[in-house]
Amino acid sequence: MENKVLESLESTFVIILDKISIDTSNKGLLDVRDRLKKIFSYNVGHGKGIRALFVVKTFILLAKHNGIETTKEDIELAQILGASVEIMHAFALICDDIMDESSTRRGRPCWYKQDDVGLQALNDGIILMNESFHTLKLFLGHKKSYPIIMETVHEMMRYTTYGQHMDMASNSNNTGPRFDLFTKSRYETIVKYKTSYYTFVLPVRLAMYLFGMKSKSAHRQAEELLLKIGYLFQMQDDFIDCFGDPIVTGKQGSDIADGKCCWPVVRALELCDESQRRHLVANYGIKCEQNVYKCKEIYRQLNLKDVYLKEELTIYEEICGDLQNLKNGNKISKEIFEFILEKVYKRKY
Amino acid sequence: MENKVLESLESTFVIILDKISIDTSNKGLLDVRDRLKKIFSYNVGHGKGIRALFVVKTFILLAKHNGIETTKEDIELAQILGASVEIMHAFALICDDIMDESSTRRGRPCWYKQDDVGLQALNDGIILMNESFHTLKLFLGHKKSYPIIMETVHEMMRYTTYGQHMDMASNSNNTGPRFDLFTKSRYETIVKYKTSYYTFVLPVRLAMYLFGMKSKSAHRQAEELLLKIGYLFQMQDDFIDCFGDPIVTGKQGSDIADGKCCWPVVRALELCDESQRRHLVANYGIKCEQNVYKCKEIYRQLNLKDVYLKEELTIYEEICGDLQNLKNGNKISKEIFEFILEKVYKRKY
Repeated sequence: MENKVLESLESTFVIILDKISIDTSNKGLLDVRDRLKKIFSYNVGHGKGIRALFVVKTFILLAKHNGIETTKEDIELAQILGASVEIMHAFALICDDIMDESSTRRGRPCWYKQDDVGLQALNDGIILMNESFHTLKLFLGHKKSYPIIMETVHEMMRYTTYGQHMDMASNSNNTGPRFDLFTKSRYETIVKYKTSYYTFVLPVRLAMYLFGMKSKSAHRQAEELLLKIGYLFQMQDDFIDCFGDPIVTGKQGSDIADGKCCWPVVRALELCDESQRRHLVANYGIKCEQNVYKCKEIYRQLNLKDVYLKEELTIYEEICGDLQNLKNGNKISKEIFEFILEKVYKRKY
Repeated sequence: MENKVLESLESTFVIILDKISIDTSNKGLLDVRDRLKKIFSYNVGHGKGIRALFVVKTFILLAKHNGIETTKEDIELAQILGASVEIMHAFALICDDIMDESSTRRGRPCWYKQDDVGLQALNDGIILMNESFHTLKLFLGHKKSYPIIMETVHEMMRYTTYGQHMDMASNSNNTGPRFDLFTKSRYETIVKYKTSYYTFVLPVRLAMYLFGMKSKSAHRQAEELLLKIGYLFQMQDDFIDCFGDPIVTGKQGSDIADGKCCWPVVRALELCDESQRRHLVANYGIKCEQNVYKCKEIYRQLNLKDVYLKEELTIYEEICGDLQNLKNGNKISKEIFEFILEKVYKRKY
């Protein structure tokens, strides 16, 4: 099922690119059409595609749960909707890389680092964002849910920029980590706004709207659960960045060197004594292997791995408990959250 | 009337900022609320506000022309709509400055050049874009025209990024102007997409939708006229950049040094002989006063000022002719275009 969705995601992108390019097929805009093709092929669809997967899977499970037969066209629309979220995601990644001054993304140079791109990458990113909305218009413009889908995308994008701001403010322009801001509650806010809304809440709620499910209580219930799953996902991400095996994950962690407000440091600052805190503060956020090593040494002293495994299990069990108690009154399927939770829990990268 | 609109624009921004900030008034997002205030006060509403003026004026003239009394609330909504376009404009300017690596904007350092901002400016810009849609939702979400207004904003933003791409491709990453691309037809395409849709077509069409005017032929007619006015505006802008008096305009032109594809160089390349072309190609797009001077010398030889004045008059008269022939069948008021045309024609900066 999953591979099938991801395979068809590839062909969905082709269908989308074809259709959104029609507007640029008059002579005057041929440059734009060519550029669009290049931007797409370099930036769109190279990730795991989980957002698209969540959209399609949610749609299918909602139909199944409510005893409604889906047509091929229904599924295609869900795929388009999922793909539009991935296109938006590509916009976000282009911008993130520019802001973080990153060099590589998924093992290749960042788009803005390409010789013939540079800061024009920013306009390319905004083109992708606009094409995401263009996609919605062309394929879903006739659906009743079209306006609320646009609005929901706007809202979740807005939350993401809020989270992005909070995240960056923790170490503003690399002027040094602001440890006074590295609190549990602030970390939770960052995760909620920067990650959970956009990676978990957005795909599921969009699929619910496309399916025709407008019940506010159903959306609220889904959101609550997905924010918890989002937290689990992000704390894992942070843990893997610090403790993961680069051979397995394919990426070198950099949160300590970058002075990020992330799970390990937040928990360490809670657990450490005064001397450990001094060491952490002295070495965190410095782009040098030796300093990173010293931070990790303190993490080891604090048994952060065990703390992590315990907290991960607690949260997992809490979500499982929520799912057990999920009332089916509003026709939302438990299987959706089980599927997403299992995708997240115990992942290795 | 005009000053009144611009004065009330100021207070409209205050009303908007108040309302969009409610969402960030819970404890966890206070940082975001403070940032939003800073971004707004530095970036929003420091320009001439013509886009907001066009929205409000169009709305008022449509009502007058169709014999409909407007309430205070109607006008306030038009002001909000106009202000939302200005907020979006602020997003575009922040991004433009980053891409162009500009230093100043309206006599002050660019937002991204502020010490405590840097590339975070990009996220701030995207916040503004999102707040523009947030504004539409909060104030106009109950209106029938809300979905088509969102969609129209998306479409015009998309066209603007197309134009931006064409413009930048003319001198990609300052690798030197691509003179083969400096043709009249390409210049017209750049102007249409980069400037006219967003500065002229967008405000008027949004006001038409808010007023409840959906007729496709009315929108098409408005668009045709406004694209012509947009061209007049941009060729003036280009002319002023090259020939304007910095004391009057308040800005130093830079199109020649930046190697821009703009009106003077496009026309000069049409009119010059081989030797003049060699000189132009050798000196255009070099950030040095001497080279700029040599380009201007060729412009003088070609009497570009006279060519400009003649072309400006021709286009102006053509638009006046169009207005004379404007059929009133679809209830669109001629006065709208007369107002906008007069704002543009013979402006000095």
